Amino acid sequence: MFAHNKRLQYTVRVSETNPGLANLMLEQFGGPQGELAAACRYFTQYLAEDDPGRKDMLIDIATEELSHLEVIGTIVAMLNKGAKGRVSEGLNTEAELYRSINGAGNDSHVTQVLYGGGPPLTNSGGVPWTAAYIDTIGDPSCDLRSNIAAEARAKIIYERLINLTDDAGVKEALGFLMTREISHQQSFEKALYSMQKNFPPGKLPGMKEFENVYFNMSTGEGDVRGPWNSDANFEYREAEPAVDGGSGMPQTVVSDDDATRVEQLAQRTQSDPTADPVTGAELGRGNGSARQSGRGKAGATR
Amino acid sequence: MFAHNKRLQYTVRVSETNPGLANLMLEQFGGPQGELAAACRYFTQYLAEDDPGRKDMLIDIATEELSHLEVIGTIVAMLNKGAKGRVSEGLNTEAELYRSINGAGNDSHVTQVLYGGGPPLTNSGGVPWTAAYIDTIGDPSCDLRSNIAAEARAKIIYERLINLTDDAGVKEALGFLMTREISHQQSFEKALYSMQKNFPPGKLPGMKEFENVYFNMSTGEGDVRGPWNSDANFEYREAEPAVDGGSGMPQTVVSDDDATRVEQLAQRTQSDPTADPVTGAELGRGNGSARQSGRGKAGATR
Amino acid sequence: MFAHNKRLQYTVRVSETNPGLANLMLEQFGGPQGELAAACRYFTQYLAEDDPGRKDMLIDIATEELSHLEVIGTIVAMLNKGAKGRVSEGLNTEAELYRSINGAGNDSHVTQVLYGGGPPLTNSGGVPWTAAYIDTIGDPSCDLRSNIAAEARAKIIYERLINLTDDAGVKEALGFLMTREISHQQSFEKALYSMQKNFPPGKLPGMKEFENVYFNMSTGEGDVRGPWNSDANFEYREAEPAVDGGSGMPQTVVSDDDATRVEQLAQRTQSDPTADPVTGAELGRGNGSARQSGRGKAGATR
Amino acid sequence: MFAHNKRLQYTVRVSETNPGLANLMLEQFGGPQGELAAACRYFTQYLAEDDPGRKDMLIDIATEELSHLEVIGTIVAMLNKGAKGRVSEGLNTEAELYRSINGAGNDSHVTQVLYGGGPPLTNSGGVPWTAAYIDTIGDPSCDLRSNIAAEARAKIIYERLINLTDDAGVKEALGFLMTREISHQQSFEKALYSMQKNFPPGKLPGMKEFENVYFNMSTGEGDVRGPWNSDANFEYREAEPAVDGGSGMPQTVVSDDDATRVEQLAQRTQSDPTADPVTGAELGRGNGSARQSGRGKAGATR
Amino acid sequence: MFAHNKRLQYTVRVSETNPGLANLMLEQFGGPQGELAAACRYFTQYLAEDDPGRKDMLIDIATEELSHLEVIGTIVAMLNKGAKGRVSEGLNTEAELYRSINGAGNDSHVTQVLYGGGPPLTNSGGVPWTAAYIDTIGDPSCDLRSNIAAEARAKIIYERLINLTDDAGVKEALGFLMTREISHQQSFEKALYSMQKNFPPGKLPGMKEFENVYFNMSTGEGDVRGPWNSDANFEYREAEPAVDGGSGMPQTVVSDDDATRVEQLAQRTQSDPTADPVTGAELGRGNGSARQSGRGKAGATR
Amino acid sequence: MFAHNKRLQYTVRVSETNPGLANLMLEQFGGPQGELAAACRYFTQYLAEDDPGRKDMLIDIATEELSHLEVIGTIVAMLNKGAKGRVSEGLNTEAELYRSINGAGNDSHVTQVLYGGGPPLTNSGGVPWTAAYIDTIGDPSCDLRSNIAAEARAKIIYERLINLTDDAGVKEALGFLMTREISHQQSFEKALYSMQKNFPPGKLPGMKEFENVYFNMSTGEGDVRGPWNSDANFEYREAEPAVDGGSGMPQTVVSDDDATRVEQLAQRTQSDPTADPVTGAELGRGNGSARQSGRGKAGATR
Repeated sequence: MFAHNKRLQYTVRVSETNPGLANLMLEQFGGPQGELAAACRYFTQYLAEDDPGRKDMLIDIATEELSHLEVIGTIVAMLNKGAKGRVSEGLNTEAELYRSINGAGNDSHVTQVLYGGGPPLTNSGGVPWTAAYIDTIGDPSCDLRSNIAAEARAKIIYERLINLTDDAGVKEALGFLMTREISHQQSFEKALYSMQKNFPPGKLPGMKEFENVYFNMSTGEGDVRGPWNSDANFEYREAEPAVDGGSGMPQTVVSDDDATRVEQLAQRTQSDPTADPVTGAELGRGNGSARQSGRGKAGATR
Repeated sequence: MFAHNKRLQYTVRVSETNPGLANLMLEQFGGPQGELAAACRYFTQYLAEDDPGRKDMLIDIATEELSHLEVIGTIVAMLNKGAKGRVSEGLNTEAELYRSINGAGNDSHVTQVLYGGGPPLTNSGGVPWTAAYIDTIGDPSCDLRSNIAAEARAKIIYERLINLTDDAGVKEALGFLMTREISHQQSFEKALYSMQKNFPPGKLPGMKEFENVYFNMSTGEGDVRGPWNSDANFEYREAEPAVDGGSGMPQTVVSDDDATRVEQLAQRTQSDPTADPVTGAELGRGNGSARQSGRGKAGATR
Repeated sequence: MFAHNKRLQYTVRVSETNPGLANLMLEQFGGPQGELAAACRYFTQYLAEDDPGRKDMLIDIATEELSHLEVIGTIVAMLNKGAKGRVSEGLNTEAELYRSINGAGNDSHVTQVLYGGGPPLTNSGGVPWTAAYIDTIGDPSCDLRSNIAAEARAKIIYERLINLTDDAGVKEALGFLMTREISHQQSFEKALYSMQKNFPPGKLPGMKEFENVYFNMSTGEGDVRGPWNSDANFEYREAEPAVDGGSGMPQTVVSDDDATRVEQLAQRTQSDPTADPVTGAELGRGNGSARQSGRGKAGATR
Repeated sequence: MFAHNKRLQYTVRVSETNPGLANLMLEQFGGPQGELAAACRYFTQYLAEDDPGRKDMLIDIATEELSHLEVIGTIVAMLNKGAKGRVSEGLNTEAELYRSINGAGNDSHVTQVLYGGGPPLTNSGGVPWTAAYIDTIGDPSCDLRSNIAAEARAKIIYERLINLTDDAGVKEALGFLMTREISHQQSFEKALYSMQKNFPPGKLPGMKEFENVYFNMSTGEGDVRGPWNSDANFEYREAEPAVDGGSGMPQTVVSDDDATRVEQLAQRTQSDPTADPVTGAELGRGNGSARQSGRGKAGATR
Repeated sequence: MFAHNKRLQYTVRVSETNPGLANLMLEQFGGPQGELAAACRYFTQYLAEDDPGRKDMLIDIATEELSHLEVIGTIVAMLNKGAKGRVSEGLNTEAELYRSINGAGNDSHVTQVLYGGGPPLTNSGGVPWTAAYIDTIGDPSCDLRSNIAAEARAKIIYERLINLTDDAGVKEALGFLMTREISHQQSFEKALYSMQKNFPPGKLPGMKEFENVYFNMSTGEGDVRGPWNSDANFEYREAEPAVDGGSGMPQTVVSDDDATRVEQLAQRTQSDPTADPVTGAELGRGNGSARQSGRGKAGATR
Repeated sequence: MFAHNKRLQYTVRVSETNPGLANLMLEQFGGPQGELAAACRYFTQYLAEDDPGRKDMLIDIATEELSHLEVIGTIVAMLNKGAKGRVSEGLNTEAELYRSINGAGNDSHVTQVLYGGGPPLTNSGGVPWTAAYIDTIGDPSCDLRSNIAAEARAKIIYERLINLTDDAGVKEALGFLMTREISHQQSFEKALYSMQKNFPPGKLPGMKEFENVYFNMSTGEGDVRGPWNSDANFEYREAEPAVDGGSGMPQTVVSDDDATRVEQLAQRTQSDPTADPVTGAELGRGNGSARQSGRGKAGATR
C-alpha cells in the first residue's frame, strides 16, 4: 500500500515563472525517459517478481521514482503558475494573451491552451505518454539490463535540462533527481551481477558456430576493427547469404486444398511482364498523348 | 547505400502452414522487441555517430538486423500462405471460412481479415509498430547500454517462440536469429567498455551526498539486504521527506500582475469547506430524498 | 513524498491460476478506465491545484488509486503465476506449450509471449496505456466532473469483471475496489457542488439566444420529447443553417500577395467539369476498351 | 442517414488570415476536447442505445456536433488560406518561405509542411486524433456523466480560444460553439437525472462498510476537512493496510506441475544477497580499479 | 450543416446475434480502411478545397460515408445485442458468462468487457482508430490518388467480410456498402483525370537524368523484366553509390565554435579500438573467470 | 539479405548547420509520407508477394527507399551537427543554451533535448512514426494503387522542403530524392496496369443497380456537375434513405433468453420522458435556487 506525505522528497524553489522552461521539463514528467516511465517500469516488475531481494529493491526504487515524479511535476507546476492565471483569467487584450502564449516558445502553447497550465503527462512536444515506452518482458536478467540503461538515459536528460536553466533552485532539485539515477543504476547493476549466471540471458544456448561471429555487412571506406569485432573476440566474416549452407530461398508446404487456392490467386492477379500497358500516369501527363512517358521508345501492346 | 541479395541470410524451411503460429511470430517482426526496432535503433544511431569504430559497428549490425527482419518476415509469410489463399479466394462456405479464421486462435484474425495474410508491422496483438519503442537519446554510453538490453530482450523472445513450435525448420531459423542476438550483445558490450569512462554517463557529476544512498522507501515484512543496498556499497537510509533539510514545500515567485490573476482564479473557483451541498449523486440515488447519502447524519447547509 | 508498505490495502486470495481471466483483469490495470488512469488523473490535478481542500482530497484519492493499482496488479500476477513458469521454463513438448498459450483464450497470448506472464500496462486487448485516456484540462469545475464520470465508469468495469469469476477471493477484492469508486465519486461530487457557482463552467457567459435552444437535427420516426428537450426547459427548434441570420457561407480576407498565389494554385489544379477523360479505372476494367464504364453512354471528350 | 446543406450552421467571417491562430484552433477540430471527439462519442452511443428518448437526443446532438466540426474546420481553413497558397506556390525566395513558416509560431509548421495548409485531424501540437479520447463504455448512467463532463471541458477550451483572438467574426462563431456546449450539457443532465436511479451506477451494490469511508492517505501539513470527507458524509479513517483484517499478503494456489516450474525459475534466476559482485558500472568508472564504487568499504566476494 | 434522417441509407436485417462476427465487422467501423477514415478523409479535404467541382464531390461522398458508418455500426450493434444484455445483466453463473465471452472468439472480449457490447471506434483487434490512418496532404492530385486507393482497399475488406457470413441480410447490406466503394472510386478517378496535368504532381520538375531510371537494387535469382523496368520505359541500371558522381560521403560546415564542442564531444566519448576491456557480459557468464568469452584467445589490455 | 556500402546513393553537401531546418526535414525521415514508411510498405509487400515480376520490383524499390532513408537522415544529422555538440557539451551560459534551443524554432527542441541532436524517427512535430501509416492490405491491385498514391505524396512533401532552403547541396540531394519518387510512381503504374483486370479490385462484383449511381448527399448553392457525376457516367440521384426499398430501420433476432436480459436492461436504465428532474447543472448555477434553468417555465415533478 502506498502512503503520501505532503512534503516533497526534495524542496523545490523556483525563482521566476517561465512556461517555456516548464514545457522542456515535461521530458522528465511525461516523456519517454521520465519519472512516470521509471515508476511504472519498476512497479510492474515488482508485482511479478518472486525473488525476495529483487522484489524489495524494485518497490523501494519504484516508490522513490513516484516521489521524483512529484518533484519534477511540482517544478512544472511552479514554472507555469503565472501562465495558469493568464489562461484562465485572460489578459488585458486578446492580442496580449496570444503573444504571451506564442512567445513562450517551443510547445508550451499546448500546455497552456489544452491543459490550462497544469502538468500534463506528455513529453515536451505534447506527445501523450504511452506504455510502449516500457520494455519490461518478465525476465530478470533482461529487465535489470533494461533498468540499467533506463537510469543511464534519465541521468543524461536531467543533465541536459540542468544545462538549460540558471535558476538556482530548479538546478538544485534537478541535480538531486539526476544524482539518484546514478544511485539507482548502481543498485540495478549489483542486482544483475549477483545473478549467476546472467549471460546469455535465458535457458537456451546459442548455436556455437554463430555465437561469436561478426559479419561485416557494411563495406567501403570506414571499416574499423576494435574489440567489438576483433579476432581476439570474434570470428570476422564477410557478409554472405545462406550461411547455413542451404539455398537461401524459403520453402513451405501447403496443403493440396490450399495450394489450389494459392494458384488461383496467383493467376487471377498476375502482372503480365510482356505487356506495355497505358497507365494512369501517362494519361495524367496531359499533353495530348498518353504514350510519351519513359524513354520515348514505348510501343503499345494493346 | 543498401543493396539486396534475393537469398536470405539463413534458409527458411516451413513444414506446415499455421496462421496461429504465424501471428505469434509477429512479435519479432513488428513487435517492440523485434527486428524492425533493432534495425531502426542501430541505423539511426549510425547516422548521428561520429566515432569511427562505433559508427562502423552500428551499420554492420543494423544491416544484419534488416536481414533478420527479412528472415522472420519470410517465416510469417510462409506460415500464412494457406490462409492468404483462403482469405482472397474464399472457402466452400462462409461458415467454413469463419471457422477457419476464428479457429486459428490468438489474434491471427487481424492478419487475415485486415492484412490478407501478409506480414504486417504489428505485434502479435495487432498493435502497430511505433517508434516510441526506440529509446535512443544520442549519448553513446546510454545508447550502448540500451542496445545491450535490447539484444538481451530479443534473445528471450526468440527463446519463447522456439519453445512454441516443433517445426524443425522454423526452430532452426529462429535459433540462428536468437544466436545472433547473443553475438551482437557481446559487440555492444565491448564497445561500451572500450569507452573510458562510461559511468556515470555524461559530464555532470552527481551530488556526492546522495550518489550512494539507498532509501528504504517500502517498509514491512519483506525488506531484504543485498549488494544492491548493502552497507559495503551504499548508505542505507530510511525514507524521509525534504532530504535537503528544507521545508519540503514548493515555493515560487510570481510577478505581481500574475499574482493578481492567480488570486482571482483561486477565489472564483474555491470549494467551500464549510458547505454541505446537495450533489448530483444524491439526486441520483432515486429514493425520494436527496439527502440520504453519507452516514445518515447529513444536515443541509442550504 | 510517497512511501510504501508491503502489505496490500486489501488482501488478495486467488484459488486457482488462470491466464485467460488474468488477461481480462488487465482492463482495470492498464486499460482506459483502470487504476493507472485514475491515479495519474488525480495526481496531476493535485500538482497544479491551489485550492487547499481540493488539493488535499486529490492526493488522498490519488494515493489510494495507486494502492488499488497494486491490488489489481497483484491479482493479475497471481492468476498468471502458472503461466509465467510455463513460458520461461517450457512444457514437456512445444505442442503442449502452444496449446496452453492458445487455449487460454482472449488475448492472454500477448501477456505470455511478450510480457512473460507479468502484468503489462495494457488493456485486455494488448493496447498499451496512453495518457490520451486522461482528460484533465486544468479547470476545477471540469476536472471534477471528469473525475465523477471516471469513477462511475470504473465502478461498472469492476462490476463486469466481478460477474466473470466465481473465485471467492478475487470476487471479494474486486468488490472492495468497486466499492471505493462509489466512495470516491461521492467525494468528488461534494467537492464540485461546494464550488459556487460551477455551472456553466468558466467565466464567459453563453449567448443568451442559443443557451437553451434544442435543435432537432435528426428527423423521422423516433423523435421523442422529454426533459432534455422539453418546452419547459428548452426552446425546441428545427435544424436550420445560418442560425445567425447570415449567409452561412464562409468569408475570409486574404492579402493581395496571398490572393495571387491562391488564384494561381486554383488555376493550376482545377478540375475541368466539361471534360470526360479516360481514367485509370477504365483502363483497368480489362475488356479491350477503356470506355465502357458508366451507364453505357460515355462519349469521349478528348 | 446523414444529409448535408452547403450553408454552415453559423456563418464564419474571418478578417485576416493567420496560420498561428489557425493552429491553436485545431484543439477543437482534432484535439481531445474537440468536435470530432464529441460527434463520435454521441454517434456511437446512439447506435447501441435502446432507450427511445436518449437515442433521439444522442443523434440530435451528434449531428449538431458534426455541424460544429464543420464550423471550426472552416475557421481553420479560412485562417490558413494564405499559408496554403504560399506552401504550394512558393514565395519569392526560399528564405522568405522558411521565415514565413517558422515565424507563424507554435506548431503551425506541421500544418503547413505536412498538411499543405488544410485542417488536419490533430490537436494544436500535431498529435493525431485517436479514439482513445472517447470514454464510452456502454452504460447509460456512466456515458451520460462522461458526456456532461465532456461538454464542460469543451466549453472551457472554447473560452480559452475566444480569449486569444480579437477577430470579431472568429470570436462570434466560437462564441456560438461555446454556447451550444452549455446547452448540450443541460440536455445530458436532464437525461441523466430522469433515470431513476442513476447512482451508484450499475446493479451491484457496494460493500456497506467501505462505501462511505474516506481514507486519509496523504498526511502532513495541508490536511483539510470539507464536505468531501466530513463526518456528516463519511467515516474518516487513517490509511491502513489490509483493511479486510487479513494479512495483506497475496496468496495463490498453483498446480503441482506449475509449482515445479515456478520453483525451477526462481532457482535459476535468483539474485544472491550474500555476493558482492563486480559490476559493469564499476568497470565503467574508468579509473584503473573496478572496485572503488560505493562507500569505499567494498570487499570482493569472488 | 449536417442533418440526419432516422432511416438508414440501406436497411439492415440481422437474422442472429453473434459477437464474434460483430467484432470482425469493426474493421469497417473503426479500422484503418473503414468508414470513419473515409468520411474524415473526404470531409477534411472538402473544408480546404477551393475548386468548386471537387469541393461539391468531396462533401457528397463524405456525407455518404458518414451514412455508411451508420450502416456498418448498426450491423455491429445488432450483432452484439444479445452480448450487451449478458454483460450488463449477467448470466446464471459467472462461469457461464466467462465462457460466453471467451467462446465468442477473436477479440470480441474487448468489445464486451470494455465497451459493454456497443460499437467502439476500434479495429477488430481492439486498436483505437487514429487520424494517422488519414494520408491527406492538401494537394489535389495526391489526395485524389489517395482516395482512389482508399476506395479500392475498402472494397476488398468488404469482400472479405462478405465471405465470412451466410446471414443473408448482413451479406446484402455489406454488398451495398462494397458496391458504393466501386462507385466512389470511379468518381475520384474522373476528378483526377479531369485535372490537366496531374502527373508528376506539383510544380517542380524532376531531374531529367533520374526520372526514368530503374535501379536494380536487389540482385540474384529472381530478377524479372517487365513494363515497370523495361528498356522501353526506363533506363535499367545496376545499383551504384554516389550516382551524382561525387564521393558519396556527407559533408557539412560547422562554425568554429561548434566545431570545438563537436571535437570535445568526440574525445570525451571515443571508443578505444586498441583496448580489449572486460565487459559486463563476461562478468555475467558466471564461470569463475571474466575472460572466457570470444574465441578463447582474449588477452586483457588492462 | 541486405548489404550496405558506406557511400551514399547521392552525395550530401550541407553548407551550414541549422537545427530548425533539420527538424522540418524529419517529415521525410520519420513522418507519415517519409522514406521509412516507403521502405516498410514495399518490403512487407515483397515478403508476401508471389508474382515474380512484382516481387522483384518491390524489393528493388524497397531497397532504394532504405538508401533514401539514409540520404535524408544524413541531411538531418549534418544540419544538426552543431546543435548536437551544444547539447552535450553545453554553451557558455545556461541562458545561451536555452535561447539557442528555443530560438531554432518549430519543434527542434524535441530533437535537441530528447534526442541529443540525432535523427529520431518522428515527424517534424515530434510524433513517433507508427505502422498505422502503412495501408497495405495484401491485395495487389489495392496495394499498387496505395503505392502510386504514396509516391505522389512523397514527391510533393519533397517539393515543399526544397522550397524551404537555399542551401544548394541540400536542395540538390532533395531534388534527387523527389525525382526518384516520380520514377517509382511510374513503375508501380506499369505494374498495376499490366494486371488484367485490375478494376474493380477483387473477385466479387458490385450490385449493378448501385455501381454507377452518384448520390447528391449535399445540397444547396455549390452543386456542380462534372465527369465525376455526369449523366454520361453515372445515374445522378438525390439522397434518399432506404434505397433498398425497405423500412430503413434495423432489425435483429435475439434469442429468447437474451431478449429477457435486454428487456430487463431497458427497464432498469430507462429515462423517464415525463419527469422534469432537478439536475446537477441546476444545483451548480449557484443562485440559491436549483430550478432557474431553462426558459423560466420549469415546474418540478418531484
